[in-house]
Amino acid sequence: MINKNQIKLIKSLSLRKNRMKHKLFLVEGDKNVLELIKSDFDVHTIFANSNWSKLNPTVNVSVVSNKELIRISNQKNPNNVLAIARIKESKIFNQSGLVLVLDDISDPGNLGTIIRTCDWFGVTSIVCSNNTVDVYNPKVVQSTMGSLFRVKVMYTDLAKYLKKVKSDIYGTLFDGKNIKKVAFNDDVHIVMGNESNGISKEISNFITKKIKINSNSTNTDSLNVAVATSIILYEIKNS
Amino acid sequence: MINKNQIKLIKSLSLRKNRMKHKLFLVEGDKNVLELIKSDFDVHTIFANSNWSKLNPTVNVSVVSNKELIRISNQKNPNNVLAIARIKESKIFNQSGLVLVLDDISDPGNLGTIIRTCDWFGVTSIVCSNNTVDVYNPKVVQSTMGSLFRVKVMYTDLAKYLKKVKSDIYGTLFDGKNIKKVAFNDDVHIVMGNESNGISKEISNFITKKIKINSNSTNTDSLNVAVATSIILYEIKNS
Repeated sequence: MINKNQIKLIKSLSLRKNRMKHKLFLVEGDKNVLELIKSDFDVHTIFANSNWSKLNPTVNVSVVSNKELIRISNQKNPNNVLAIARIKESKIFNQSGLVLVLDDISDPGNLGTIIRTCDWFGVTSIVCSNNTVDVYNPKVVQSTMGSLFRVKVMYTDLAKYLKKVKSDIYGTLFDGKNIKKVAFNDDVHIVMGNESNGISKEISNFITKKIKINSNSTNTDSLNVAVATSIILYEIKNS
Repeated sequence: MINKNQIKLIKSLSLRKNRMKHKLFLVEGDKNVLELIKSDFDVHTIFANSNWSKLNPTVNVSVVSNKELIRISNQKNPNNVLAIARIKESKIFNQSGLVLVLDDISDPGNLGTIIRTCDWFGVTSIVCSNNTVDVYNPKVVQSTMGSLFRVKVMYTDLAKYLKKVKSDIYGTLFDGKNIKKVAFNDDVHIVMGNESNGISKEISNFITKKIKINSNSTNTDSLNVAVATSIILYEIKNS
């Protein structure tokens, strides 16, 4: 059973201001919820249908009907389980190793996919501009496929942050050097820009090394930002 | 001005069966419509607001109000222009070079992103299973960012198609060989599988060479399919 106040709380968490107020966010789907339970995030409540509950007998859940799940889900095809989890305070983290910097990424699916790819390539630190889409947006959480619980994502004033960075700061720009020919150091910052506008003028001033992904076509001028990020991470981790 | 029948036609084109019946599809947004006009696709009608029309004086458009554009748009943030274009008959195309094979890709954004990446890397032939999401779905068209008009996409019975293929057929599987260590031929077929289920059992029988993308993590088991496709195409085109 789920009560009216719980439904009200869940519905409210689709908006950022309510997530910030309650310090809570939603996690949907089998894979995502199981990864949440394994992680160091605190679980507030888990709502699951009786099937899911039987398959996961050690997990403490509120059993709800499928009808109730449809009512609280943010998905077109509701899952068997939905959890409320506590937002972790973002702490300043180690700047050594590979740090990904996101300058105003706006599409939730792109941010989620970038986090998932970071997890694959062992990149654990992402620094986002304050205008980047909220990592606790349900669509972002969904598309991370559980990787959200292993990759640290911090929001800050990028200009202030980059001013203090001592490692090389790479950014993809049209006149950049082919990444295939770049010898990346172990400690690097990689800046990726907004879907429509690329890296902003203010932030591009901090780029110390310009890079680009070689194209085999003269017709097209851009790659999806999650794709471009993934190719760069692949090249760095496999060169 | 736009009349009731035109609105009815446009609305109907969000469904595949109506696109097939009329042999028409929708193209929205500045970038996409300008790429359509440059392409060898036939344009049926272009609806644009007066601003867009003034900026593109050589393009023959029906000028409509912003209110009318909101009414016919499939987008959350309607664009200044929407076109109806004619579907091209898919012809059997050359199987030499790099051919991408998609086994039941279901997410429109993923298919669109894959087409955009193919365009970037000069891959012009994609063969899709009949259950792959329709390339003329408005969300696919949107996320190709105009690349749809340069990449040939064909739908067919994949098993029948692959039976006749003479080149190596590569597929990403868990026990595959690290792509970094694979010497790809010029003529190759690359098979990518469904978002949830990977390559189907029937199709995996046709794979002659198993490949994988190396991970630097033991926690995560998958990459987004558009990301995985992009990394493989990057590796083939840059090794």
